[in-house]
Amino acid sequence: MSEFDDALSVSDAAADLDPGWGIGAGINGGILMALSARTLAGAVAAAGGHGDPLVLSATFLSAAQSGPAWLRTEVLRTGRSFSTGEVSILQHGPDRDAERVRALVTYGDLARQSEPVWRCARPPQMPGPDCCVPAVRGGSAFARQIALLDRLDLRIDPATAGWATGQPSRKGELRAWVRFADGRDPDPTSLLFFLDALPPVTFDLGALGWAPTIEFTAHVRARPARGWLQISVTTSNVIGGLLEEDATIWDSRGAMVAQSRQLAGVRMPEDVST
Amino acid sequence: MSEFDDALSVSDAAADLDPGWGIGAGINGGILMALSARTLAGAVAAAGGHGDPLVLSATFLSAAQSGPAWLRTEVLRTGRSFSTGEVSILQHGPDRDAERVRALVTYGDLARQSEPVWRCARPPQMPGPDCCVPAVRGGSAFARQIALLDRLDLRIDPATAGWATGQPSRKGELRAWVRFADGRDPDPTSLLFFLDALPPVTFDLGALGWAPTIEFTAHVRARPARGWLQISVTTSNVIGGLLEEDATIWDSRGAMVAQSRQLAGVRMPEDVST
Repeated sequence: MSEFDDALSVSDAAADLDPGWGIGAGINGGILMALSARTLAGAVAAAGGHGDPLVLSATFLSAAQSGPAWLRTEVLRTGRSFSTGEVSILQHGPDRDAERVRALVTYGDLARQSEPVWRCARPPQMPGPDCCVPAVRGGSAFARQIALLDRLDLRIDPATAGWATGQPSRKGELRAWVRFADGRDPDPTSLLFFLDALPPVTFDLGALGWAPTIEFTAHVRARPARGWLQISVTTSNVIGGLLEEDATIWDSRGAMVAQSRQLAGVRMPEDVST
Repeated sequence: MSEFDDALSVSDAAADLDPGWGIGAGINGGILMALSARTLAGAVAAAGGHGDPLVLSATFLSAAQSGPAWLRTEVLRTGRSFSTGEVSILQHGPDRDAERVRALVTYGDLARQSEPVWRCARPPQMPGPDCCVPAVRGGSAFARQIALLDRLDLRIDPATAGWATGQPSRKGELRAWVRFADGRDPDPTSLLFFLDALPPVTFDLGALGWAPTIEFTAHVRARPARGWLQISVTTSNVIGGLLEEDATIWDSRGAMVAQSRQLAGVRMPEDVST
């Protein structure tokens, strides 16, 4: 079983959050969204609903830790074209049960909802994976805190990797190729993970700190082909300690397969002008 | 009391959805989002939480009708910087109670979270309100179905209003000035309404039908100044009967105050190429 499928396996509503999906002391939000969507999909299917996640909106309530967790699901509707449910991930907290994330997810049938393509965003021009900068844990003291990097084959466009050597482009964009390190092919649920797998786009603005997600909304628009995914992350509005981060993913055929927008927190250094 | 504040008044969790906020046989999603956020804000404040809506993600489950409705709220956390809750709007259905919309909303303090401005999107270049095309109910048979237009002073940039005379620009963009018809000033909650107040952006692609919202996520980034709001709506991906619609609002000082992304359904006419 792949590392990703292992992370998404739930038995009797109980999951184990593996530290291998960690970022610093917490667990990556993308793996929590994928786990949420996969678990709720089971409940929706059992109620006769649809199977492909089309849109997920997740609110992050407290930082998930590695270790035991459990999920709570509720099916809200099973309609003709769409089915919708709600899911929460909970863990035992010091005083009481702590809800980590709550998400609303609408499912449909991507085979019917991914064509015809009337209009779509084109992938950005960038060098191929072999000409990009691999993001590896040995790269810096900061990267060593990102256990998640071992699960990814992540190659960053050199034009948007200057922050790693103190020269951020300050354009507010990161571009990269990404796939699972263990060779697992991408599928719709994994796109929910990949949309949140890059470093914060604020790195490219010279702010090399965490950017904790407050809310994350993802749209899955097509089933991805096998092979590399190409991802672009941008921000246009960094205001008062908050920013929006927009991500778009194309598959190896160049098809737009997913996009997202999140609201995240950021602490901008005082000497930065953007 | 203004028409908008009247629509948002709730007594003992009961509301009345006025047909004046209608679009066709349903009720506009923006007014439902504003009603949800305002009602939940009361519950969050009662629990000691924050007062300004920062991010709302709403899932539309069934079409709301004019008439009685009630709201259900749940406070999920009241933290140091953010407070979060969940809210639903329900109505009596033919067989059983029908949930119309469910939303997760995070509140904060916009006075603290709207500056400094490190980076922000600039308002689009467009003619002033007096040189734009007023959207009025008498304009067409289609417009007569949109009761909501009587509540708005909506002026559409002529460059993106060609669809009204059979000449859509096909760029996938609408731009407009907007304010309440009765003179009420904009505030953070009203931005949740204005983000969804324009015609579907697919009009500009030659598809003159409804585009029902599946999911809508809104970010409020600053308290708007008095006066006109400027709004831009775009789409980049129209695929298999679904599209994303991104909206951005600037206030009369030119400050970016809110943005949104929704996933909506659309039926594209067969003779359209985009």
